[in-house]
Amino acid sequence: MKHTSEFALIERYFHSLTESRNDVIVGIGDDCAVLKTPDNTLMAISIDTLVENVHFFAGVDPYRLGMKALAVNLSDLAAMGARPAWFTLALTLPEIKSDWLDRFSGGLAEMAKLHQLQLVGGDTTRGPLTITIQVHGHLSEHDVLRRDAAQSGDLICVTGSLGDAAAGLQYQQGQLDTQWLTEVDIDYLVQRLEQPTPRNGIGEYLVGMAHAAIDISDGLLADLSHILDASKKGAKLNLSALPLSFALQKLPVEISTTLALTGGDDYELCFTLPVDQLEKVQQQFPGMIHVIGEITEESDRIFFDGMGQRRTFSELKAGYDHFAE
Amino acid sequence: MKHTSEFALIERYFHSLTESRNDVIVGIGDDCAVLKTPDNTLMAISIDTLVENVHFFAGVDPYRLGMKALAVNLSDLAAMGARPAWFTLALTLPEIKSDWLDRFSGGLAEMAKLHQLQLVGGDTTRGPLTITIQVHGHLSEHDVLRRDAAQSGDLICVTGSLGDAAAGLQYQQGQLDTQWLTEVDIDYLVQRLEQPTPRNGIGEYLVGMAHAAIDISDGLLADLSHILDASKKGAKLNLSALPLSFALQKLPVEISTTLALTGGDDYELCFTLPVDQLEKVQQQFPGMIHVIGEITEESDRIFFDGMGQRRTFSELKAGYDHFAE
Repeated sequence: MKHTSEFALIERYFHSLTESRNDVIVGIGDDCAVLKTPDNTLMAISIDTLVENVHFFAGVDPYRLGMKALAVNLSDLAAMGARPAWFTLALTLPEIKSDWLDRFSGGLAEMAKLHQLQLVGGDTTRGPLTITIQVHGHLSEHDVLRRDAAQSGDLICVTGSLGDAAAGLQYQQGQLDTQWLTEVDIDYLVQRLEQPTPRNGIGEYLVGMAHAAIDISDGLLADLSHILDASKKGAKLNLSALPLSFALQKLPVEISTTLALTGGDDYELCFTLPVDQLEKVQQQFPGMIHVIGEITEESDRIFFDGMGQRRTFSELKAGYDHFAE
Repeated sequence: MKHTSEFALIERYFHSLTESRNDVIVGIGDDCAVLKTPDNTLMAISIDTLVENVHFFAGVDPYRLGMKALAVNLSDLAAMGARPAWFTLALTLPEIKSDWLDRFSGGLAEMAKLHQLQLVGGDTTRGPLTITIQVHGHLSEHDVLRRDAAQSGDLICVTGSLGDAAAGLQYQQGQLDTQWLTEVDIDYLVQRLEQPTPRNGIGEYLVGMAHAAIDISDGLLADLSHILDASKKGAKLNLSALPLSFALQKLPVEISTTLALTGGDDYELCFTLPVDQLEKVQQQFPGMIHVIGEITEESDRIFFDGMGQRRTFSELKAGYDHFAE
């Protein structure tokens, strides 16, 4: 998980807290840390905390919460191309309610089963509801999907569809104009928020093919910017190529585009791919891989095509009332 | 960390939540999980959460808190004989106070430096003050210090001295009769509570020599019982051999013995050792290794020598007003 808040500052604060070891290949600052064991196996790990009323509503279905708590961590492994193996759970609970625990652990177990993950450690304490999960994955090759390896001319690709989870959140907060949507649309958007699908199969496949990758937890522009910053590159995006679900396609284009560009919590992958690899990847995952733009040399800038004229992000933003951030 | 509370039940609840993988050598229920990487390297991991007002007082020195948060995790590695390598931190904070962060991270960094640990991942979120740390250590041999390997005739040994942290806690809670103690004694006891010294050097040395080991976080009797339960053995303890600090030796014997038997938070090691290994271990760590009893065949029973007559734990307990639990 990444943070757009002031809390991101603290993470930077901890970056250089301890001395560097030779066996740390990627430290703090990517989706996962990559660690080398004494026998030179690479392992990816990621830790995420979900706090009640910060990351989820108090009334959320505990089954979906269990699934999501594991899914957001799996998504970090997907973004590194690591194969999921083990996880640990630190669960802080105000009280013991067996109904809640049954459903929460049921959701965890279902997501774990989907990815052949085993729970290998835990700590359960009394306190305000907080869920911390750490996942461990294997990297079969020394080619890791990092953030800092995007190259000029790479295609910028995303999986699935964008903006759905943010629309689901806006609906739950009473901020989504639903006049264009059916109940089925709304159920779909809320499910995308509460039960995200981490793209581990795609992430593992991309190792050795894609140059850079990240998972979309903070929104496409925020997360793509992490790739651009780390790689010292720019991007040209084609707004009309943003993949929108059947539900988002029903919304006015300025609303759906804003959601797709800035909405968080989708847990799709954003990756940069040499042109000659595209066909192979699209054949492997039919309908799932969408080219939305291209990496450029112009460091730290994002240009937009497809709105009738080229605009920078700040011009685009000034033109939209709805631009969050 | 282990739990004497109802929360221990929840941990058991999660034991069989997910399917078993072949690469999980020790799962939930020992001090650490032991995991095998694809290249057959063994790794030990442990996760612990400290919650404000549950595991520490709101006013505790953040520097000492940082040290202790890492120390209690290191102690779990020590109890498996694993060599510390990496750790992650999930920090939930109600607000950002740079003074507090400076001191907390300074304490973390000092403890990390002592053990050549690198912080490799983190997640910082807003919420009630909660500190979750996961440590990763290497096991150079396939001989792991487990709980379930005690053998009849093994000597029961402990490191350092016992009961100090519990006396420090009683002092802080106004429950310790201090008439026999100086200020230096009290400072020492509080320091033992707030700045425990994990015994990693000893733990690593014991691999291949000791049969079973655990760290003393819940109290000698509780933690020794974990070894006895897992190994299906009993124990004979010599109460007059319990190692007491200069401070605890000043207290009436029934108080100091109770503290040494049942006081938690010392983070010393308790291990079982074949008789012929004792001299070598004691020479390696002069003054640190104390023999307090012997493993017996009588499953699930602890007998006490040294109080003038042999008593079972329940007889001893009935005789002491002070026996906590």
